[in-house]
Amino acid sequence: MKRILLLTTGGTIVSRESAVGRVSEYTGGDLVRDIPELAGLCEIQIHDIMKIDSTNMQPEDWKVIAKEAYKGLQLFDGIVITHGTDTMAFTSAMLSFMLKNLNKPVVFTGSQLSIDEPNTDAKKNLVDAVKTAVAGYPGAYIVFGGKIIKGTRACKTHSTDFGAFESINAPLAGKIVDDKVCMENPLSKSAGETTLEMGADNPGYPGVFLLKITPGTNPKVIDEIIKMDDYRGIVIEAYGIGGVPNARRDLIEPIKRAINANMSVVVVTQCRHGITDLTRYEVGISALKEGVITVDNMTTEAAVTKLMWLLDQLSDPQEIKQRMQENLCGEIG
Amino acid sequence: MKRILLLTTGGTIVSRESAVGRVSEYTGGDLVRDIPELAGLCEIQIHDIMKIDSTNMQPEDWKVIAKEAYKGLQLFDGIVITHGTDTMAFTSAMLSFMLKNLNKPVVFTGSQLSIDEPNTDAKKNLVDAVKTAVAGYPGAYIVFGGKIIKGTRACKTHSTDFGAFESINAPLAGKIVDDKVCMENPLSKSAGETTLEMGADNPGYPGVFLLKITPGTNPKVIDEIIKMDDYRGIVIEAYGIGGVPNARRDLIEPIKRAINANMSVVVVTQCRHGITDLTRYEVGISALKEGVITVDNMTTEAAVTKLMWLLDQLSDPQEIKQRMQENLCGEIG
Repeated sequence: MKRILLLTTGGTIVSRESAVGRVSEYTGGDLVRDIPELAGLCEIQIHDIMKIDSTNMQPEDWKVIAKEAYKGLQLFDGIVITHGTDTMAFTSAMLSFMLKNLNKPVVFTGSQLSIDEPNTDAKKNLVDAVKTAVAGYPGAYIVFGGKIIKGTRACKTHSTDFGAFESINAPLAGKIVDDKVCMENPLSKSAGETTLEMGADNPGYPGVFLLKITPGTNPKVIDEIIKMDDYRGIVIEAYGIGGVPNARRDLIEPIKRAINANMSVVVVTQCRHGITDLTRYEVGISALKEGVITVDNMTTEAAVTKLMWLLDQLSDPQEIKQRMQENLCGEIG
Repeated sequence: MKRILLLTTGGTIVSRESAVGRVSEYTGGDLVRDIPELAGLCEIQIHDIMKIDSTNMQPEDWKVIAKEAYKGLQLFDGIVITHGTDTMAFTSAMLSFMLKNLNKPVVFTGSQLSIDEPNTDAKKNLVDAVKTAVAGYPGAYIVFGGKIIKGTRACKTHSTDFGAFESINAPLAGKIVDDKVCMENPLSKSAGETTLEMGADNPGYPGVFLLKITPGTNPKVIDEIIKMDDYRGIVIEAYGIGGVPNARRDLIEPIKRAINANMSVVVVTQCRHGITDLTRYEVGISALKEGVITVDNMTTEAAVTKLMWLLDQLSDPQEIKQRMQENLCGEIG
């Protein structure tokens, strides 16, 4: 029987009504006790590492989760991590980058309704996640609402539906069909030993600001971000295939100042679906000329976390650019 | 035969290759000449009002477009406005608010490929838009890729597909089926005379900053926005059903400062689909207590434009809040 480590971090799945609204309170032990089916699937060891509503998940927490997952990978056949849905796609992307050459499964799940609510999706999601971990496909995935999604491709696209997550710009990795794991597009297997990749000194990650532009976005906002020197990168959610305003409220000039200040500026699309291509329109070309980094069809969640992760380890902007554009674990192309 | 006014504003549909990339260059006359079918549908008068890649569309342009549409409504049976796709959903939402009691159609369209490209979607979209205007359902719509979407519900969700627009949290208003307008959920008819509603003095709109949060968002960003006194409102793209971080990088404190500085702070979801409900989790309740404005299932595009529009006309935060939460033209509920 396979041995799976269940790491809990908080979130709706373990939330309980309180005087101040729902807060993360139940333990992994409560989950496993409430879902007797789990005991038949594998041997489960539980480790409650934090109890955080994932709205409050911060970059420093990713290092804590990654270290626990890395430790567990030495001893178990796979890891299941329960997590709030709100920022699960950020955490799954970040761990995809941090756990290099992942040769075992690291499966995230959570739920839209708590384990203590009628009709909860917690039980199905956790059973599906454990089955996926037992199935043994290496790599980081989110299992939710019957879908198996690559960790770098997930996005929470519905605030309340049980099918809250979508795979963006990539087919589903797999599905749960008739209670069985049906893997169609698993991540490619990595050669080499699994390592934990992160900058040594920083408890968290260098700041990366996400700027979703709208008509009227004031260019001075970028200058203020440059001045707040804890930010070392900016991800711009541009329009369409990557349009960045270059007239009147011209964002190109402050972007140039950010790049001159040694910041990395990445362009993604606010459309969510589809590629960026800054070579087609004047409003893309003018940004490209200043040295913004384009990342094809990468999600916002993957771009923000990957840039933080690279900035934590590298300082040469050219090297950061090159690595941002390289496919490391299914996040691009 | 009905009389339709075609207003052109630029965008891909009239774009032409140039030494600096594609720029808006063709005229409404070029469009009508290239699509002979249009002449059989109605009598078309053309007015080229601007030639802007819609990435560069700014709030002050909305007033120019709205004034031309308003003038046209006195003389024509309907208006068709060609526009770049990148910010079309912002413009269609803003004109929905500005043109009160709209009793004739105002139909936006554009294309993913220029009128001069092989396999362009420009011809079909413009024909569909004109047919929709001729059909006469009053209100502002986007007609694109065979879909008819309420002006306040549209979102560009794919950067390159011909079906680039979706109707968010509302059914399609209608479809083009077998080249015919098939209206299923038209906007409700307004009683009273159509009026152009906007603040008298400002050429543009008061600034509204869109803050899409990620793990790590620095609370100081909100303080910087407060200091840049051209911003009078903030729309927060929160997580899930409306979670706003309230611990460690606590955003509630600076939000409180923004509200105390007489700014209006609106919360929408970055999931795009689904409602917000800040009463369920502690991370919603703490924001609600400070007076953030919730807007149920309103899109980001509608929330940003509606808030600008209200701030242009009103100064009492309570009145702004009440109007934000009222359904004016299908944007909420």
